[in-house]
Amino acid sequence: MSLIVQKFGGTSVGSIERIRNVAARAIAAQKAGHQVVVTVSAMSGETNRLVAMVEALTPSYNKREYDVVVSAGEQISIGLLAIAIDAMGAKARSYLGWQVRFLTDNIHSKARIQEIESDRIRKDLDEGYIVVVAGFQGVTDAGDVTTLGRGGSDTSAVALAAALKADLCDIYTDVDGVYTTDPRIEPKARKMDRISYDEMLEMASLGAKVLQTRSVELAKKYSVPVRVLSSLEEGTGTLLTVEDQTMEKVLVSAIAYNNNEAKITIIGVPDSPGVAASIFGTLAGANINVDMIIQNVSAGQLTDLTFTVPKADFKQTMDILKQSVKTIGARDVTGDTNIAKISAIGVGMRSHSGVAQKMFKALADERINIQMISTSEIKISVVIDEKYTELAVRTLHSAFELDKERGDSVGG
Amino acid sequence: MSLIVQKFGGTSVGSIERIRNVAARAIAAQKAGHQVVVTVSAMSGETNRLVAMVEALTPSYNKREYDVVVSAGEQISIGLLAIAIDAMGAKARSYLGWQVRFLTDNIHSKARIQEIESDRIRKDLDEGYIVVVAGFQGVTDAGDVTTLGRGGSDTSAVALAAALKADLCDIYTDVDGVYTTDPRIEPKARKMDRISYDEMLEMASLGAKVLQTRSVELAKKYSVPVRVLSSLEEGTGTLLTVEDQTMEKVLVSAIAYNNNEAKITIIGVPDSPGVAASIFGTLAGANINVDMIIQNVSAGQLTDLTFTVPKADFKQTMDILKQSVKTIGARDVTGDTNIAKISAIGVGMRSHSGVAQKMFKALADERINIQMISTSEIKISVVIDEKYTELAVRTLHSAFELDKERGDSVGG
Repeated sequence: MSLIVQKFGGTSVGSIERIRNVAARAIAAQKAGHQVVVTVSAMSGETNRLVAMVEALTPSYNKREYDVVVSAGEQISIGLLAIAIDAMGAKARSYLGWQVRFLTDNIHSKARIQEIESDRIRKDLDEGYIVVVAGFQGVTDAGDVTTLGRGGSDTSAVALAAALKADLCDIYTDVDGVYTTDPRIEPKARKMDRISYDEMLEMASLGAKVLQTRSVELAKKYSVPVRVLSSLEEGTGTLLTVEDQTMEKVLVSAIAYNNNEAKITIIGVPDSPGVAASIFGTLAGANINVDMIIQNVSAGQLTDLTFTVPKADFKQTMDILKQSVKTIGARDVTGDTNIAKISAIGVGMRSHSGVAQKMFKALADERINIQMISTSEIKISVVIDEKYTELAVRTLHSAFELDKERGDSVGG
Repeated sequence: MSLIVQKFGGTSVGSIERIRNVAARAIAAQKAGHQVVVTVSAMSGETNRLVAMVEALTPSYNKREYDVVVSAGEQISIGLLAIAIDAMGAKARSYLGWQVRFLTDNIHSKARIQEIESDRIRKDLDEGYIVVVAGFQGVTDAGDVTTLGRGGSDTSAVALAAALKADLCDIYTDVDGVYTTDPRIEPKARKMDRISYDEMLEMASLGAKVLQTRSVELAKKYSVPVRVLSSLEEGTGTLLTVEDQTMEKVLVSAIAYNNNEAKITIIGVPDSPGVAASIFGTLAGANINVDMIIQNVSAGQLTDLTFTVPKADFKQTMDILKQSVKTIGARDVTGDTNIAKISAIGVGMRSHSGVAQKMFKALADERINIQMISTSEIKISVVIDEKYTELAVRTLHSAFELDKERGDSVGG
């Protein structure tokens, strides 16, 4: 007998009818001989409704209390799902984060899971129950309710699968798998049968919204086999797994894009030790996540420093820098919100050269100017003018022949 | 320094603006030098919304899971209220039933509080926090969520006041106090400044919807001074307290009515031991609450048995009795849903005779026929045709001179 963790997002439990559909899937898996744990998000729209009430009270809300309010969404959906399963003749029992228990740190609204006490779940599974667990929420050592940040239910599911040593963690969503790029931009985008944790990690952090980044990190850390598949139609989805030789044969597996970042340049920065540390220290102190950083080769005593931040933090970042520009003796600060980051991702890059050159040439052929470049072992990202986003994605998708079947294809 | 428990119902926290109003009241009490604990219900409409979703899934829902779903309503309102208090510059902390903790039995959907562990609340109060506690919910010894039944937040507040040995438990509602009768029926109805626990108990169980019966029982048991007052306008409300001599001078304090009951008569019941026990045993087994019971003097071997049940249980009761009538050898069963129960209540009855006669005469003068009579130490109830409800209430209200100021009046 194998143990399966199933995770359903807000759309999948967005109505009474859909909750029944989820119940049917869980029961089917149990009838097929598996032990089944189901993790669900709040019904679609519910978390937004709760957050809107909080924000209507004050923009600078108490985060401990924010967690109390928003965690109610998952509480409603687990109870309803357990009732649906029970009404369809199977045994079900729901658990909240504090009951299971999902022990987290006390960073309210974006807590991290530290430990899961799963004894009660195991006991219920052995007694034939389908166990329904609230995603997104946890509890601190002191007994306060916490939430894991938006999209945290993916992380709940993978953490639960790791704690229970589950044989499979099925993440049901509104897409039928992970694609070589966004199919809304490139209709020739192809669903991948498998993808390595590292590739998925790059895709998640680069803006492909299929899975929360932390859930993929966790899956990699504990080698949890995660499958992304559709809750609305049948299919085999995409399996996240450790990389193997067939994967390495492919230079580039996917093209990702992100147009939620803005570019900032500090002009005429004194080229002396400690200046960069001071700038980024100030931004880190304001909880602003700096992404790509480029420092031009100095010409004399002065240099230019360019980096990207989330668009949502752009105004605050500019305000802070306009102050500190004087302190550090730089000349000026300029910003640009009309940029996009396009990335080519593939574990095959590790053992092949020439990927960067191929990427730059393909973009140059389309007269798309590259403003910034950053690379990792398995990824090359470029920043371009936002208006070329779709063109760049399609250009790179065909340059790396992602529309053609890969060697590792299972479907044939 | 005194400790006050304030309870606000769903209407009082029904919108963002009203939540701010509740926050302001709590802060004002703290600024006046009190330690303040606030208990709130779910925002008005919220519990109905949650129950409707449960019932859309199945009419015979799992009650453990029902409690998980509906208790989310109070979770939302306590978090929002704590955020509002915090935003207005005072310190606030919210607690759910399992955090405080409200230990209950495991009768899901109508659990009873067994014990409250209030250490954490005391500590917070001493540190200057306004403590916001979820009404209506608790937790079992095994760690399952329970709810106390509709209106249970009153009971939560009084239980909390008893556990904390509070100096006052203020129940804020949408009326400004307890009236000598329903002001919608008798415009001359007068707000009482004080009422004894026993009188309030009779009024609560007789259909005056100001307070949940169990909350009054609890207040009496632990001598908690409870005040009923309006959350929307200023006023001194009505104080529930132990009875005193001034109260005993008044024959009748209030007139209550209840037209949510139905009358059932079993005709031709064999007048032998055990028959009544068998009938009412069957009804108790189906969780049907039987209220007034009258058995006519037997004429020969047969007798008639009349009693009342909640209108909501009328159909089920008739179905059950049509079966058992044959078993016990009775002749027939008839029912009437068009009845009303009118009651005169007053601790003064204990030491005065003549109240019943005065009541029956006043009704007779208006040609209102009395179908059933039942009495307790401090109450006389009669069942009449429902269409005379308003006339009977007004008739008795003036017969007992309730429109005139009582001797114990504080307001003058």
